[in-house]
Amino acid sequence: MNNACDKSKVYGQELWENILTEVEQSVLDEPILASFLHLTVLRNHNLAEVLAFHLSSKLSSQIMDPRALNEIFLDCFKENEDIINAVEEDILAYYQRDPACDQYSMPLLYYKGFHAIQTHRINQWLWKNNHRTLALFLQNRSSEVFGVDIHPGATIGKGIMSDHGTGVVIGETAVLGNDISLLHGVTLGGSGKETGDRHPKIKDGVMIGANASILGNITIGEWARVGAGSVVTRNVPPHVTVIGVPARIIGSTDDNMPSKEMNQMLDYDMDFVI
Amino acid sequence: MNNACDKSKVYGQELWENILTEVEQSVLDEPILASFLHLTVLRNHNLAEVLAFHLSSKLSSQIMDPRALNEIFLDCFKENEDIINAVEEDILAYYQRDPACDQYSMPLLYYKGFHAIQTHRINQWLWKNNHRTLALFLQNRSSEVFGVDIHPGATIGKGIMSDHGTGVVIGETAVLGNDISLLHGVTLGGSGKETGDRHPKIKDGVMIGANASILGNITIGEWARVGAGSVVTRNVPPHVTVIGVPARIIGSTDDNMPSKEMNQMLDYDMDFVI
Amino acid sequence: MNNACDKSKVYGQELWENILTEVEQSVLDEPILASFLHLTVLRNHNLAEVLAFHLSSKLSSQIMDPRALNEIFLDCFKENEDIINAVEEDILAYYQRDPACDQYSMPLLYYKGFHAIQTHRINQWLWKNNHRTLALFLQNRSSEVFGVDIHPGATIGKGIMSDHGTGVVIGETAVLGNDISLLHGVTLGGSGKETGDRHPKIKDGVMIGANASILGNITIGEWARVGAGSVVTRNVPPHVTVIGVPARIIGSTDDNMPSKEMNQMLDYDMDFVI
Amino acid sequence: MNNACDKSKVYGQELWENILTEVEQSVLDEPILASFLHLTVLRNHNLAEVLAFHLSSKLSSQIMDPRALNEIFLDCFKENEDIINAVEEDILAYYQRDPACDQYSMPLLYYKGFHAIQTHRINQWLWKNNHRTLALFLQNRSSEVFGVDIHPGATIGKGIMSDHGTGVVIGETAVLGNDISLLHGVTLGGSGKETGDRHPKIKDGVMIGANASILGNITIGEWARVGAGSVVTRNVPPHVTVIGVPARIIGSTDDNMPSKEMNQMLDYDMDFVI
Amino acid sequence: MNNACDKSKVYGQELWENILTEVEQSVLDEPILASFLHLTVLRNHNLAEVLAFHLSSKLSSQIMDPRALNEIFLDCFKENEDIINAVEEDILAYYQRDPACDQYSMPLLYYKGFHAIQTHRINQWLWKNNHRTLALFLQNRSSEVFGVDIHPGATIGKGIMSDHGTGVVIGETAVLGNDISLLHGVTLGGSGKETGDRHPKIKDGVMIGANASILGNITIGEWARVGAGSVVTRNVPPHVTVIGVPARIIGSTDDNMPSKEMNQMLDYDMDFVI
Amino acid sequence: MNNACDKSKVYGQELWENILTEVEQSVLDEPILASFLHLTVLRNHNLAEVLAFHLSSKLSSQIMDPRALNEIFLDCFKENEDIINAVEEDILAYYQRDPACDQYSMPLLYYKGFHAIQTHRINQWLWKNNHRTLALFLQNRSSEVFGVDIHPGATIGKGIMSDHGTGVVIGETAVLGNDISLLHGVTLGGSGKETGDRHPKIKDGVMIGANASILGNITIGEWARVGAGSVVTRNVPPHVTVIGVPARIIGSTDDNMPSKEMNQMLDYDMDFVI
Repeated sequence: MNNACDKSKVYGQELWENILTEVEQSVLDEPILASFLHLTVLRNHNLAEVLAFHLSSKLSSQIMDPRALNEIFLDCFKENEDIINAVEEDILAYYQRDPACDQYSMPLLYYKGFHAIQTHRINQWLWKNNHRTLALFLQNRSSEVFGVDIHPGATIGKGIMSDHGTGVVIGETAVLGNDISLLHGVTLGGSGKETGDRHPKIKDGVMIGANASILGNITIGEWARVGAGSVVTRNVPPHVTVIGVPARIIGSTDDNMPSKEMNQMLDYDMDFVI
Repeated sequence: MNNACDKSKVYGQELWENILTEVEQSVLDEPILASFLHLTVLRNHNLAEVLAFHLSSKLSSQIMDPRALNEIFLDCFKENEDIINAVEEDILAYYQRDPACDQYSMPLLYYKGFHAIQTHRINQWLWKNNHRTLALFLQNRSSEVFGVDIHPGATIGKGIMSDHGTGVVIGETAVLGNDISLLHGVTLGGSGKETGDRHPKIKDGVMIGANASILGNITIGEWARVGAGSVVTRNVPPHVTVIGVPARIIGSTDDNMPSKEMNQMLDYDMDFVI
Repeated sequence: MNNACDKSKVYGQELWENILTEVEQSVLDEPILASFLHLTVLRNHNLAEVLAFHLSSKLSSQIMDPRALNEIFLDCFKENEDIINAVEEDILAYYQRDPACDQYSMPLLYYKGFHAIQTHRINQWLWKNNHRTLALFLQNRSSEVFGVDIHPGATIGKGIMSDHGTGVVIGETAVLGNDISLLHGVTLGGSGKETGDRHPKIKDGVMIGANASILGNITIGEWARVGAGSVVTRNVPPHVTVIGVPARIIGSTDDNMPSKEMNQMLDYDMDFVI
Repeated sequence: MNNACDKSKVYGQELWENILTEVEQSVLDEPILASFLHLTVLRNHNLAEVLAFHLSSKLSSQIMDPRALNEIFLDCFKENEDIINAVEEDILAYYQRDPACDQYSMPLLYYKGFHAIQTHRINQWLWKNNHRTLALFLQNRSSEVFGVDIHPGATIGKGIMSDHGTGVVIGETAVLGNDISLLHGVTLGGSGKETGDRHPKIKDGVMIGANASILGNITIGEWARVGAGSVVTRNVPPHVTVIGVPARIIGSTDDNMPSKEMNQMLDYDMDFVI
Repeated sequence: MNNACDKSKVYGQELWENILTEVEQSVLDEPILASFLHLTVLRNHNLAEVLAFHLSSKLSSQIMDPRALNEIFLDCFKENEDIINAVEEDILAYYQRDPACDQYSMPLLYYKGFHAIQTHRINQWLWKNNHRTLALFLQNRSSEVFGVDIHPGATIGKGIMSDHGTGVVIGETAVLGNDISLLHGVTLGGSGKETGDRHPKIKDGVMIGANASILGNITIGEWARVGAGSVVTRNVPPHVTVIGVPARIIGSTDDNMPSKEMNQMLDYDMDFVI
Repeated sequence: MNNACDKSKVYGQELWENILTEVEQSVLDEPILASFLHLTVLRNHNLAEVLAFHLSSKLSSQIMDPRALNEIFLDCFKENEDIINAVEEDILAYYQRDPACDQYSMPLLYYKGFHAIQTHRINQWLWKNNHRTLALFLQNRSSEVFGVDIHPGATIGKGIMSDHGTGVVIGETAVLGNDISLLHGVTLGGSGKETGDRHPKIKDGVMIGANASILGNITIGEWARVGAGSVVTRNVPPHVTVIGVPARIIGSTDDNMPSKEMNQMLDYDMDFVI
């Protein structure tokens, strides 16, 4: 059994060249994908161009021209070096934490959870720069195409693994730190109809299991772990595991960062109840 | 902190003119959306034309021409004034209950939960008028594009806020009253493989949290509240809050209509258990 | 009230002719669908051609030509008679277990859960034959279009009803037997970041309710039933019903195969708790 | 040898029913065309709807939505009964004069010269009603798609057969009467750079051969015949045949209307010259 | 100055391998074309597959699916080995006669005159096998896309170079032999409105210059040459050059086959006339 | 009667602002074109961006992505300021010589002859920089979409009015000077199958009428005029008018530049001949 931690982190030009090498091999292996891979990756000069092209392929539609989207995405990346840095950290998060991910190019090309987070990074910038309507448009397209609905006002750090993605909902005033893993179906929702700060704050290193709902302006402490299917409406201390509907603490998360371990298992007996 | 209740309800011509004013402003603010907004909204004459055009953009495909869909949607709205009335009530439901929604045009243009409900309103009419196959086709397209799967036989009232939408499933014999809020991932499912009346009945004013499953021919009483992630297979009395897998009553919903308050919070301790 | 068991099983040429008869009737009933139905069904000669055409319509995109996909799907079906046999068993599973499904052509044409499973059957073959990149590409498209994310390495038997589909996630080393029913939102997920055998084994006849999460290399025994919204991280014995977050045993499944009965109901009181 | 004059003229409802009968037969004969024919013809209710749909399929593009064009074409036909009357006379002109045309539906569906003339009829109306830019847009699309470039200001009568179409150019102040036949490559061009009345006037019953150029504000008299490849910059009297570069009179056109006889032959010896 | 005759004729597998070699080089030289070239050429197995794919890309449209066309073209080539043989002879005709053509793949991929002739070869077969409506449909598409309008009833030999193509019109009862060169704008038209045998017969080795019109059931003898812009309505003897409107004999074509020499020059003085 | 010479020449920023003003007015006048005009013109920053976008809309296809073309066109314009200068001179040529052209934006947006010349300007640059295959690809697309077939090796000056365009063919070694007008159907063709310098040289100020063919390595002298439908295979002296098949001199062109006067008229009698 391989330990995924052996996978090395590379950045910038080195990451780009690794991606090119992987994709060139794919073209040889899979002629039917050659047209897609040339157009999307090989004819481009860097990660930003690939991502702008790939996302504009996915988010354009009968009434939104792919050239127009491609252009605005390139502008965004040109003005925000931080975003491409975060894109790299996200790629590496999948590469290191997901046992099924053994190529740098896999999240870039094939993981819709990744695509949705990067769409949001663009959207965060648009929202802050008073392009609210465009941000709403892209939020809607991301929700239709990726099944991931993130309000452009949300703040998201880097090193994020949003695995699978389908059903994820993140509200306007949510704040996510760095090195977080959140699985499909996770909701970071609001407390009610009042405006203002009303969504969760997720600290560094947190792991949130599939279909968990975290609701209201509460804090999930550093290195905490929220079990799949749980519903949390109270603050969660750092370094604990919570589970249940509603969720309760069932133990500590010990020495390892939950978002990197991705441990989904719970220690309990399958007793006969009710 | 603003109180969303300050947002006023307007109907008919006044609503239409508000929408036009909002969209004209968007064209000025966001040139990249000008082509989309002109084509979808500004060149049209009323809400029905906008909705028919917008839904046919979204639901058409390589093998279903947008002109054909546009035409049938216009025919449906022409024959059913009630539907456009319900569309207006739904727009106002979002406008008043969703703190992130501060324009009448936002649900109309950008909320896929809204689009799915309106697609279902057309489908309900098609189903009743013996256009069963077309209704199945559109149910499938709605499920693919919006991630919302509503059987065309289901009965749905007005003033419905179906926020975010992804993962919603509503069965054939479900009946929903008016002024209901239901979040993403909500299932109103069947009891088993027997045909006949087998899906939930949701009364006026109910609020159903994210990923809650309500199964079988049971009744959720007026003004009740079903917590996120809960699973309900028993009748729920009016004016109570239920939560859990399976769900149990944890309190009353007091004086305010849950669907309008949208209160997602639960009063419990984050105790250490197991 | 009809008993769905009266619906008869037919295979091969007889099934194909039933489908043609149903679709010819639909053309007469619904002129707006005539173009879609002719192109997708009536001009073709067998189930394999219909499925290859229909899936290539759905999975192609701006950067993936429908002709290229159609061709590879036809090649796959030609080389694998077993796949078309499994397709037939899946159609019959919906036909017999879903009260809303009264035509053989309904899952084939309109059920995205069915489409996703058949896309996976192709993918399973591609993965085993060293077409890994193409399989990843199609997994991604299936996740975008159907909201169903199945790793191409997963092993899936026949007679599978994956109803509604949205949100389903199935991991690389999961193994599913025959005659299984699994509803939307079901996760068969991994245990953590270690590689190797890390996903659930689901035995014959199991029924898994909506949004249930089954995590880790555990076994769900024959004829077991997992309630909606449950989270399971321990082995489940055969012939029992489990429910809860985390899930616990609440009873046996008696004499009938849960996947065929599709019974979603639980026997419990709506007590006041907390 | 059949005489094409046996082909009968039918109008209005009778013509429409003939077209439906022909197209229904084509659907049976040619399954591969069934989707096209249903969508374009059979699901519609009259000639105007078919023509609006068919032309909007042909003239729409990546940046011009087919629904928008379809709508404006329908509006045009609704406001101008004369246009549909002229459309019918044009269909009959092909049916009676072209030996290869033995169905009323052939020019309607498959003759681009016909499509270009009908596009111009819409354009003539747009131009007169101050929709100059839209008319220029459609002139350009007609020139790209049909290879026929007719200025929207030109006046064209009815019973026009514009066979094959490619290369036809007709200038702003040209005036064409009724019952005219003009072959591909025909130019009705201007005299120079001065504005004002500067294009040819073609009287009733004239036949103009392939690639003939008629230039300047001159008149081609009734029942005249202009030979293929000729260049005419002088008035042509009624009832004569002209030919040559520049064209000269070579005889009379006798008792039959040249546009209906379509006689392309010239009486001359293949002498050795130069 | 190179002599084009040095270019060698290769057939079958050797021709196919030459084409692959040329196209592989193009992919390296021109990354922007890589996707087009892979999809259209490199992933295929023979000339027939390339041509079917390329023509279906060009002739499909909003209302005609490319997969349906691709399939019928492949069926046609499978049933008619003669057609692929003629395709090869046509490729070689361009390769040897056109000084600008120095690769076998150039006519195959980039010459619309070639594409139109091959579309007609399919159409000839469809017409003879009672697929008249489909043939009319494809004639129309060829006329729109290539500007070449050939009645499916026309008979055309092999070794045909139809250079540039725009404006070519060939009538129903025209018969063309082998090794003919015909330039853009050439008309092989009918005599009038009577049905029956009414179009030209062009014998082997004839060269027809740009925009020449040959009208009626006349014969252009072997190795004759028709000058650009000429109009011919009388039989032309073998081995002569004709020119003029109407055309007259101006000399013999000597020892070389005009279609292979492609000599466009005329021996005359630029005298002052009129 | 207006004199077109009153129309003033403006360049650079002034021309761009005139175009913006015209297009903004069109948006107000013609809501149905608003989406097209915003996307193509108003959201852009200069003539180069508009032209790159507009040509990539027209020349892209099912197998050539519009974003890829847009990018290469922008690169071409950035590296070649001369091209945009020539584009401006061409716009002004139409504006001053074509009585039907009263807006600077008309050739830019709606004249396919103009679009074909600009496509060739890009192609000329590609050809010279060893992008031969891409140039052939675009020559083919130009021939399909505009009906204009210009070999990328041809040299073309500025101030060119190629009116209507359909059927124009210009060979590899043709050289055109400045201030030339050439109408639709004009051929500047080769002498035969020998390679080398074999196409016409057209000097400054020449006007070539519709469907004229000029063949071989001959020179058309400055300020000469070639009548419509003529065939020229001999040198034409400066300042003369030629006409006929084959063409002969019929007079001088006096004091005015024929390309700017656009005089199409010939002085001759319509005598009875043959």
